[in-house]
Amino acid sequence: MGPASVVAPGSVGPVETQSLDLPGPLSLDCGRQLAGLQIAYETYGTLSPKRDNVLLVCHALSGDAHAAGVSTAPGGTSTRDGFAADDRDGSSGKALGWWDGMIGPGKAFDTDRFFVVSTNLLGGCRGTTGPSSIDPATGRPYGSDFPVITVADMVRTQRAFLDELGIERLAAVAGGSLGGMQALEWAISYPDKVDSAIVIASTHALPPQGLAWNSIARDAIMRDPAWRGGHYYGTGQTPDAGMGVARMVGHVTYLSAPALAEKFARRLQSSDQIRYTITDAEFEVESYLRHQAASFVRRFDANTYLYTSRALTYFDLARQYGQGSLERALKRLRARTLLIAFSSDWIYPPSSSAEIEQALRALGRPVEFHVIDAPYGHDCFLLEEARQTPIIRRFLGTDAPVSAQ
Amino acid sequence: MGPASVVAPGSVGPVETQSLDLPGPLSLDCGRQLAGLQIAYETYGTLSPKRDNVLLVCHALSGDAHAAGVSTAPGGTSTRDGFAADDRDGSSGKALGWWDGMIGPGKAFDTDRFFVVSTNLLGGCRGTTGPSSIDPATGRPYGSDFPVITVADMVRTQRAFLDELGIERLAAVAGGSLGGMQALEWAISYPDKVDSAIVIASTHALPPQGLAWNSIARDAIMRDPAWRGGHYYGTGQTPDAGMGVARMVGHVTYLSAPALAEKFARRLQSSDQIRYTITDAEFEVESYLRHQAASFVRRFDANTYLYTSRALTYFDLARQYGQGSLERALKRLRARTLLIAFSSDWIYPPSSSAEIEQALRALGRPVEFHVIDAPYGHDCFLLEEARQTPIIRRFLGTDAPVSAQ
Repeated sequence: MGPASVVAPGSVGPVETQSLDLPGPLSLDCGRQLAGLQIAYETYGTLSPKRDNVLLVCHALSGDAHAAGVSTAPGGTSTRDGFAADDRDGSSGKALGWWDGMIGPGKAFDTDRFFVVSTNLLGGCRGTTGPSSIDPATGRPYGSDFPVITVADMVRTQRAFLDELGIERLAAVAGGSLGGMQALEWAISYPDKVDSAIVIASTHALPPQGLAWNSIARDAIMRDPAWRGGHYYGTGQTPDAGMGVARMVGHVTYLSAPALAEKFARRLQSSDQIRYTITDAEFEVESYLRHQAASFVRRFDANTYLYTSRALTYFDLARQYGQGSLERALKRLRARTLLIAFSSDWIYPPSSSAEIEQALRALGRPVEFHVIDAPYGHDCFLLEEARQTPIIRRFLGTDAPVSAQ
Repeated sequence: MGPASVVAPGSVGPVETQSLDLPGPLSLDCGRQLAGLQIAYETYGTLSPKRDNVLLVCHALSGDAHAAGVSTAPGGTSTRDGFAADDRDGSSGKALGWWDGMIGPGKAFDTDRFFVVSTNLLGGCRGTTGPSSIDPATGRPYGSDFPVITVADMVRTQRAFLDELGIERLAAVAGGSLGGMQALEWAISYPDKVDSAIVIASTHALPPQGLAWNSIARDAIMRDPAWRGGHYYGTGQTPDAGMGVARMVGHVTYLSAPALAEKFARRLQSSDQIRYTITDAEFEVESYLRHQAASFVRRFDANTYLYTSRALTYFDLARQYGQGSLERALKRLRARTLLIAFSSDWIYPPSSSAEIEQALRALGRPVEFHVIDAPYGHDCFLLEEARQTPIIRRFLGTDAPVSAQ
């Protein structure tokens, strides 16, 4: 390392997931209440005396509270997915957070300035109350008796959690995919408490093709006999076959056709000879998908997948807040908004973000929209850290002195 | 009807699927032989005395021999899929052939001129020998003991079948999707016996994303416990759950995102009120997919799906005939070639057809390539009949006197 070498931004170091119990019950969109809620969370950086530097990051369908640093939990596994996980963490065995490249000193979400908070979402299976948690009313896991939840319910839960931490307002809320939906929901539900919203590879309402893929993924789980109507806990069986299919469906929607072509082409597994097999993986891409399925079912609960997938299909700002009009819905929003989309993302396409931008512009709200030209599809939000970082740091004013803003 | 009204092209009328037994065994790419082959077929039009007007149409994954006209079979069901089936045949109850809009007097494949032949492909479940047929060696259905087959095996079977009919050469061979692969395979395997090849919405080798979707669909079937390693015949159970998922995956890949948006948008099933349900179809598109799955499993065999899907993933002209070079592979081809692709087809993208066109042009072979700008994705080949018809009739010289060619 010569003196001129660029020093890589640092890590937040070892972290441990914390847990907090919410005191009161939470009222849900479906009309039911949930009591005894437990929240798994991590924080990075230091809360300022004025408590005005809180940045909440929200995770996507398969994430958890472990967003950054190296987990100190025994047997902690990385939840980094897709190409990132394959290429960087597969061999190290280190349990890196799912957005470790984005959170830390000098990174996009700069822990030298922000107190970054990350929770496992409501309905989760990684420490926050969800369908696999014990229902206090019965002493058994909820299973499919868990109430159907929405993105707004997830955000209400985060709001109640932050109240417990004594945090009233957010300097920023950020997330990708379902996490971006939560960021938008925050900015609309609590307009006076959110200064900035960073919405990455997300949408105000999932387009119909995304509804279709999510529906198929959920059906694959529910058609697995081991699902048992959602009450598989304690049976010794889990609907791994169905959830594996769900994961493979999801995985292909997160990638782009050119990315698959670049990574796998039509290469056969072992040689250039066809083996004439129906059951075995013959092409590299087949083997890869089966590997993704197998590793996912080991760390994730099928009912959490169902509930979370359902929540993201319901999310629809125009329906929820605008009587069908996105512009009317966004009238409530006061935060400065940063939208980032990726050119090759076909499941959360840039056109969705463009619709948000147009509505905010029509309302005269401060909004910034970047489409990053990158080939890796929806997974870009986890991969294209280097290109998102300057956009986010500039938006958050991290590179400039406060007086220069 | 005034005298100036345009008379719609006619139908081939009532038809009955025929059956023919092949005398000898067939040698397959995998090294095995199949004896006792039965072929289901239909013909439309009249064979010329010189037997020089034969046009073979090849069907896609879920089709059968009933390509045109109205089936006279009791309980005959239409195999027209997708929007076409929904919109036109759902209420009529008539068993129209899957390409009825393209085959008939005055249509694209004009039965006033051509003797059109259609067979159910090798490995099928609609009258041609496949995994659900009785293995003469055991007296029981083959199941997964059926040999793994290729597109070349399908074409060899058609060749042997035409030999039995006393037909030596094809004026044309035509097909869409997997049917287009067969048309290409015909033109390469029997270059001196094919005058014209019409390849619609197809490819010389399925791109990796298509490999992925087909792999997921097959896995969904094989992960269904009712599949029983492929030996479910006679158990009273069929892997309907898995095949339903496979069908839904396939169906969404056959459509385009804009087509789904136009047809379903994000409309809820019955009202504008969310019902908060995980298990029930909440959005119209979810209900539609489940309906497609349910109707498909009633008429199709899961093992045929597996074998046919596998065959279309293996198909790779450059690998089979060109030591990796498509141009080298296509050197064998002598037929005039017509390629048609559809702008919104993302699973058999126009770029695949463009690669064939470029290779043929480089070889100085006669080729014509049309990309039809249409929104319905891969399903266009079954839907955009009106726009394909003039292209095909012109290519086949049906509109011009023979002397003008």
